Amino acid sequence: MPASEFSLIDRYFAAHGLRRPDVALGIGDDCALLISPVDQQLVVTMDTLVADVHFFAAADPEGLGHKALAVNLSDLAAMGAVPAWATLALTLPRADEDWLDRFCRGLFALADRYGVQLVGGDTTHGPTTVITLQAHGFIPPGLALRRDGAKPGDGIYVTGTPGDAGLALAAAFGKVTVTPEYRDDVRQRLERPEPRITQGLTLRGVASAAIDVSDGLAQDLGHILERSRVGARLEVDRLPLSPALTASLDRDAAIVTALASGDDYELCFTVPPERAAQLEAAAAGWECRCTGIGVITDEPGLQLVRADGSPFPLERLGYDHFG
Amino acid sequence: MPASEFSLIDRYFAAHGLRRPDVALGIGDDCALLISPVDQQLVVTMDTLVADVHFFAAADPEGLGHKALAVNLSDLAAMGAVPAWATLALTLPRADEDWLDRFCRGLFALADRYGVQLVGGDTTHGPTTVITLQAHGFIPPGLALRRDGAKPGDGIYVTGTPGDAGLALAAAFGKVTVTPEYRDDVRQRLERPEPRITQGLTLRGVASAAIDVSDGLAQDLGHILERSRVGARLEVDRLPLSPALTASLDRDAAIVTALASGDDYELCFTVPPERAAQLEAAAAGWECRCTGIGVITDEPGLQLVRADGSPFPLERLGYDHFG
Repeated sequence: MPASEFSLIDRYFAAHGLRRPDVALGIGDDCALLISPVDQQLVVTMDTLVADVHFFAAADPEGLGHKALAVNLSDLAAMGAVPAWATLALTLPRADEDWLDRFCRGLFALADRYGVQLVGGDTTHGPTTVITLQAHGFIPPGLALRRDGAKPGDGIYVTGTPGDAGLALAAAFGKVTVTPEYRDDVRQRLERPEPRITQGLTLRGVASAAIDVSDGLAQDLGHILERSRVGARLEVDRLPLSPALTASLDRDAAIVTALASGDDYELCFTVPPERAAQLEAAAAGWECRCTGIGVITDEPGLQLVRADGSPFPLERLGYDHFG
Repeated sequence: MPASEFSLIDRYFAAHGLRRPDVALGIGDDCALLISPVDQQLVVTMDTLVADVHFFAAADPEGLGHKALAVNLSDLAAMGAVPAWATLALTLPRADEDWLDRFCRGLFALADRYGVQLVGGDTTHGPTTVITLQAHGFIPPGLALRRDGAKPGDGIYVTGTPGDAGLALAAAFGKVTVTPEYRDDVRQRLERPEPRITQGLTLRGVASAAIDVSDGLAQDLGHILERSRVGARLEVDRLPLSPALTASLDRDAAIVTALASGDDYELCFTVPPERAAQLEAAAAGWECRCTGIGVITDEPGLQLVRADGSPFPLERLGYDHFG
């Protein structure tokens, strides 16, 4: 009877991971009972990964466990929240113990690193693997990094080196050849994105707006522009391109990949000029790069320019649509 | 580009439903920002419905919208919690506006009735419709109706008339014929289960343990027994069988259906004898039946007996396995 077989999996998850003192009741009842800190807002986000849409069905389950949590922690990071709890809805074609073991290893390794407890969820049978995870975090009222706070004159920044995950995906589809020395690195960037939690926390009170880059830098920056009712001038020659990206693609293609490919899970954020020094101090402690790539403007829309001021034609270079 | 088409759906959801004052930021940013009441525990539950596993792919989308929320509110009811917020992960084979309109109508009609605001989620493309919903509610510390509080001597009760949803499902598969006068009623019970929120709230301080009946009364009562480390003696002739059930099946088959079929979303709960009068007073105000069906015992296991004390052989009557 598959129903009971799948309900056993819930107990399997209950056996793993750390125990937080703010979890009054975890996995195993109709609901979890949780104690929110009295002086903080609750921050929640939910993301779904579908087999053969967001990942290859045959992908390493350990990487998947990591990624399912990482993409949600990345959303918490983009708000400046500290992570706390997760719930997991897992739909599987079959109850494969080896797959589950490895999935759990990836999930709980990342959860433990950020002090996240899995407190509930639902495991069901279905024709395709579908992984939905909800992450819960906390932030003091008024400190959340929203999308709607960017002002003309604010600098635009990005963490890390966007485009590497897109490069790995293009390589997996045989569209690009990545030189062997970079192959593991870029695959890691696609399969094991590192949520920028530390960066988000230190951006509280510094950034005026933030978003995580999941659909591509240009498109996600577009969400900030739209919600903040501003425009932006982005200098493509300032984009932090990784050695892997510049070694694998010509310069214009590398820029397009950094701007338009998804799955990076870097943070894109804006900082008012008077807080630029604060940002510099904060970013000095980061383990990833922090790069200024442009400025927020009055004029609506996203303007892409080269160092000499000439427009960078993103669409003409093979990218269909964004924003 | 399907990604942007599906991300538009999130905005579609943002346009619907009520606005709660404890939602500082709803749909439209990386995360929602929520304000938990300082004197309450947060109660969370997550349930998934998969097409052609939990519902027919061609099912009425309005009923599905209702049911996706109802099954989660049922879990909150089983804890005695008051509902507050929901998040929705929706995986769809295509962005069908008519389907979404009707799904929303069912979802938001129920959400509005219980004061629930949809605060976030994720809409994705996938080969099969998969609906995961997380419901969030509140309860004062110490008042939650857990599965582990039943004691020998406690009475066992059930709301409503379990078995009707199972009857509707058997009829849909052509295994049973339901007389026309009951057909709409039992289909309603399968497609539009009514979460027993009011009942759960009035059981705070009265019930010693509770669970919602989603996998069948015998199996779900089994979870209370297991977690409370007790047994039960259940008198099958006291089961509240609906007229539809007794008109469609012979008596033993009706009892098996009431005990073993799922999808009822009634509450099964236990009450110490000294609080039986409190329960009677509370249940007088319910719009559904409340029926005593047995007693918690010291001896482990679930004993099913007829009125004359003879054992009721659930397995021999065609039910494979439970507990």
